[in-house]
Amino acid sequence: MQESTIGRTAVEEYDRSCYLVKVASERKQRADGERTREAIVREAVSRATVDGLEGLSIGNLARALGMSKSGVYAHFGSKQELQLATVHEAGRIFDAEVIAPARAASPGLGQVVAVCDAFFDHLARYTFPGGCFFAGAVLEMGTRPGPVKEEIAAFQSGFSALLRQFVVTALEQGELPAHEDPDALTFELNGIILAANANFVLHADPAAVELARRVVRHRLGLAAVSGGRDSR
Amino acid sequence: MQESTIGRTAVEEYDRSCYLVKVASERKQRADGERTREAIVREAVSRATVDGLEGLSIGNLARALGMSKSGVYAHFGSKQELQLATVHEAGRIFDAEVIAPARAASPGLGQVVAVCDAFFDHLARYTFPGGCFFAGAVLEMGTRPGPVKEEIAAFQSGFSALLRQFVVTALEQGELPAHEDPDALTFELNGIILAANANFVLHADPAAVELARRVVRHRLGLAAVSGGRDSR
Repeated sequence: MQESTIGRTAVEEYDRSCYLVKVASERKQRADGERTREAIVREAVSRATVDGLEGLSIGNLARALGMSKSGVYAHFGSKQELQLATVHEAGRIFDAEVIAPARAASPGLGQVVAVCDAFFDHLARYTFPGGCFFAGAVLEMGTRPGPVKEEIAAFQSGFSALLRQFVVTALEQGELPAHEDPDALTFELNGIILAANANFVLHADPAAVELARRVVRHRLGLAAVSGGRDSR
Repeated sequence: MQESTIGRTAVEEYDRSCYLVKVASERKQRADGERTREAIVREAVSRATVDGLEGLSIGNLARALGMSKSGVYAHFGSKQELQLATVHEAGRIFDAEVIAPARAASPGLGQVVAVCDAFFDHLARYTFPGGCFFAGAVLEMGTRPGPVKEEIAAFQSGFSALLRQFVVTALEQGELPAHEDPDALTFELNGIILAANANFVLHADPAAVELARRVVRHRLGLAAVSGGRDSR
């Protein structure tokens, strides 16, 4: 037999090299798999802002990404798993595009304005074709109890709590009138954000976003940005 | 032949009676048809607040109303026709529940508060299971150009124009500070309405609606309603 002519060290080396090839191949497969999963989820977030989370389909995602349905299905055991991954990815993007710039601003009123502006930027640069993922997801999934709704509600609550914290700091620093109610002001700012989103989705008009920026500044007692009401 | 034995007057009377029976039958059929169509469209508005306008299906409507699919289909030649009829009916209901009570209030600030309160009432009494029809429809159809989106956009613009008109009258009557920008204030009030809707859809908590009522009054410089912030 061929094997008997191979020395022990050679066999060990062969085994070791096979092992390394196998590990490298598995690592590559895992990395490829992760990249594929990321691509699917990124596409799903984008499509969900147009078709809704309930409108997501493995078939449509497969077509959009030039994959087989079974290839997409392998990454998500169920539609709910795909929806949860989509909400999670949307949260990651929102954190990066809206929360992170706000955290980098000066605490208090600076962060209140920065978080609103970052939201408006995120809208105006068409991060997603259908506007804010969470504004749509709240209305779509709000009446559908289950883990997907819970994830969306948790994200929404977290965002409101952060916005309220920025408002409270601004109040503590005397940057807002002492009679302002943080719950009420947080609610109003959330409303301005939602109105900007609804207007922008409907009319794709940058003027809606500029009006929203002016409204935030006017509401907070700050000077308007250039081109704003106060400069007319 | 039997006919030859019947006198001319009798024949005329028979014809006339046949004609009247036919007309009455046709009228009844039309009335029944209209009632059926109304029932289908009313169900469609309600379902659209949960499943979306794109989620409407002749099959689901037929099942919900105990009708055949062909029976529902006979009233709407296409999905687009069904969607247009649904938007139209949603507008009729909004007019009756939100606009009419506002028009009945005293012009100016009274109408600004009344239209917001009527909206909050419409929400809190669960006119629809999924909250405000138009808030959802704007986000769902905003990225889908066509006659359905146009109808929704026209309704939304009409509502904003009416709200702005109430604000302008309030300004003219000196019920609001002269520095208020009607565009900005209309935008903010629209935002408060959207925030109330999003909160209520997500949490079904009447407290969200009560907070919205307080926010509107606080924003307009009015005393809070009982249980409001100012009475704490």
